[in-house]
Amino acid sequence: MKTVYIERRERFNAAHKLYNNKWSPEKNVEVFGKCANANWHGHNYEIIVTVKGVPHPETGFIMDLKLMSDIIKEFVIEPLDHKNLNLDVPFLEGILPSTENLAIVIWDQLESHLNAHGGILCRIRILETENNFVDYYGGHEPF
Amino acid sequence: MKTVYIERRERFNAAHKLYNNKWSPEKNVEVFGKCANANWHGHNYEIIVTVKGVPHPETGFIMDLKLMSDIIKEFVIEPLDHKNLNLDVPFLEGILPSTENLAIVIWDQLESHLNAHGGILCRIRILETENNFVDYYGGHEPF
Amino acid sequence: MKTVYIERRERFNAAHKLYNNKWSPEKNVEVFGKCANANWHGHNYEIIVTVKGVPHPETGFIMDLKLMSDIIKEFVIEPLDHKNLNLDVPFLEGILPSTENLAIVIWDQLESHLNAHGGILCRIRILETENNFVDYYGGHEPF
Amino acid sequence: MKTVYIERRERFNAAHKLYNNKWSPEKNVEVFGKCANANWHGHNYEIIVTVKGVPHPETGFIMDLKLMSDIIKEFVIEPLDHKNLNLDVPFLEGILPSTENLAIVIWDQLESHLNAHGGILCRIRILETENNFVDYYGGHEPF
Amino acid sequence: MKTVYIERRERFNAAHKLYNNKWSPEKNVEVFGKCANANWHGHNYEIIVTVKGVPHPETGFIMDLKLMSDIIKEFVIEPLDHKNLNLDVPFLEGILPSTENLAIVIWDQLESHLNAHGGILCRIRILETENNFVDYYGGHEPF
Amino acid sequence: MKTVYIERRERFNAAHKLYNNKWSPEKNVEVFGKCANANWHGHNYEIIVTVKGVPHPETGFIMDLKLMSDIIKEFVIEPLDHKNLNLDVPFLEGILPSTENLAIVIWDQLESHLNAHGGILCRIRILETENNFVDYYGGHEPF
Repeated sequence: MKTVYIERRERFNAAHKLYNNKWSPEKNVEVFGKCANANWHGHNYEIIVTVKGVPHPETGFIMDLKLMSDIIKEFVIEPLDHKNLNLDVPFLEGILPSTENLAIVIWDQLESHLNAHGGILCRIRILETENNFVDYYGGHEPF
Repeated sequence: MKTVYIERRERFNAAHKLYNNKWSPEKNVEVFGKCANANWHGHNYEIIVTVKGVPHPETGFIMDLKLMSDIIKEFVIEPLDHKNLNLDVPFLEGILPSTENLAIVIWDQLESHLNAHGGILCRIRILETENNFVDYYGGHEPF
Repeated sequence: MKTVYIERRERFNAAHKLYNNKWSPEKNVEVFGKCANANWHGHNYEIIVTVKGVPHPETGFIMDLKLMSDIIKEFVIEPLDHKNLNLDVPFLEGILPSTENLAIVIWDQLESHLNAHGGILCRIRILETENNFVDYYGGHEPF
Repeated sequence: MKTVYIERRERFNAAHKLYNNKWSPEKNVEVFGKCANANWHGHNYEIIVTVKGVPHPETGFIMDLKLMSDIIKEFVIEPLDHKNLNLDVPFLEGILPSTENLAIVIWDQLESHLNAHGGILCRIRILETENNFVDYYGGHEPF
Repeated sequence: MKTVYIERRERFNAAHKLYNNKWSPEKNVEVFGKCANANWHGHNYEIIVTVKGVPHPETGFIMDLKLMSDIIKEFVIEPLDHKNLNLDVPFLEGILPSTENLAIVIWDQLESHLNAHGGILCRIRILETENNFVDYYGGHEPF
Repeated sequence: MKTVYIERRERFNAAHKLYNNKWSPEKNVEVFGKCANANWHGHNYEIIVTVKGVPHPETGFIMDLKLMSDIIKEFVIEPLDHKNLNLDVPFLEGILPSTENLAIVIWDQLESHLNAHGGILCRIRILETENNFVDYYGGHEPF
């Protein structure tokens, strides 16, 4: 059984701030620094989704990359692109939009849809800047 | 006279929207699409500043890159980083923050400070995403 | 008059070979080496299109980047993507598909369509690999 | 025992199509879309090979990277570069050249040669485009 | 328990040579080739540090990335940047500065400091060039 | 006459320091900071060479890129790669190896050799780090 991992990169541009509504503005600035700026800031986010499976003998595919891309676009890119992550996204309501939390929520958005097509979702990578990124394996700890 | 061009890349993360306050919300969406999202979106902006001059015989420098970086940070990165380009930046007041307009305004911010140290500012490049960028030569048209 | 240059990157994947039909196979291999491989090879091409103009006072745009992208896609990407540059592309008939020639032909494909919308096409950049690229300024020689 | 993983990136440019010869042309287009274009398309492939081992006390090496590069060039890059993956490569005969299948075949090409020099092959990564890539761990599933 | 992995990239520029002082110059050149050049060569090193943990419910953080960056800068970048890895670095004394050995030593520099702040160091990646890189998991072998 | 510009990227890794031998060590540190480190530091340099010309009707080439690459390797990469720019390179003797000066010297190394093959050398770009780069147009000032 020759398991292969396929990965698809997509991108979205969004505004956010790191801000805990239970805290005073002063405490938010103390903890989050300039990331707590009241009027928001933003990023070009890159998301890399990994699905594993055995290549189908007739297509050589784990799953159709076009379909994989369409699923990511429908359930992640459309709801997040050119949006405010604190205000505009139903599935982020009540969640502080750190990159860590984003990765967990995006996993939950994608898992059932991707796993319905012959692959198994196994990693979400989010790049917030060229220096900061996050990997989430559905809570598993491969290392 | 061996003129050389030196370039320094810096980065800032900011929120903005493309929105003409003289227009209705509907017209803004019609013209700017999702870039007019009321609650903002954002980008990881890269800025590349070019200065030309003749290398100094004792240092081999047009101007000290550390000084060049400090000037860009003081007059551009500090005022723009983790800010809202429509709301938070005095020198952008009343200016629609398209990448084109940003390039012009950043030139005006930097020109006198860079030119005071032996180089001549000659290009501002701004990368808004990996697919969209802008060059400004102070209004000159080299090609 | 504050002229700004805007640039849009698009991509296409294509097969080609460097092959002069007037020559023998041996001479083709002698001149073009492995690029003359009879059964083709291919590339992930990147194309960067530059248009210049003065930002419109009401939009801050030279021209709408979405429209610019649509024009590039209609007249360049659709005809070239997942195609054989020697066999499948009407506007490349009889033209040896070197990167140099590609740049000239792509300029001719785009010029009238882009110039009809307020900008002036002024550069085509094509990246064939991470080490080889070409710039074409419509025959002009800015340097 | 301080196991370290070393990685070497190499590149090749090739033509291919996704095409199952047992199917009609229509079914191929239905399943593979534009990737089934009869006259081929192509890519700049990047391959990243990972070998693990314990650094030798006298050299600090798992294995000589120059030797590792030479092995990858002899058994993978030479046979694939500037070739047609469906027609020109003996070890791909009868194999549909999806990126998934390529990764498996490249592993088989390299394993014995790399493992003869003190390292253990443990991952093949292939990047087909900037958005699509594949990892293969010899069938193992680390996550 | 939703474990997430956060990664921070930092950079340093250094000189080094691959040279075993117990060997003759001739044997060094025989084993290390041009990397043994007596007068040194150098690199722009990139280091990517990975820490895992469960996001804190009040901040969404594994650990503050600003703090993580400060720790990497204090214990790795400051001692290595613009230095000679064979001559200038106390914690590299007697160690042949191959990328493999660098990764091990950097792990030892960082582990206790990073683990004191709620995360667990789990990977050091060093990129020596765009083609050569190394991963170290503290001696663990996840695959 | 359809002039096209072709560009070739090559790379070398070298040690250097910014140091004026006529000055005291203290003054060197005052002017050049950590770049004056007595025991050197180093970089992965990228060099991008631009040649212009009219594509030949039988080959579509300005000049053979393989030949262009061979010339750059013979006259620039071989003498500089894995070397100390202050000590090991005859054509840098007496020249302070700033990136600006490197660009001028590399132009002088390449001009006659490249211009003998149908193209005209018109730009040397050197990237010293991902944030610092230099362009040299043979002393011309296109903007």
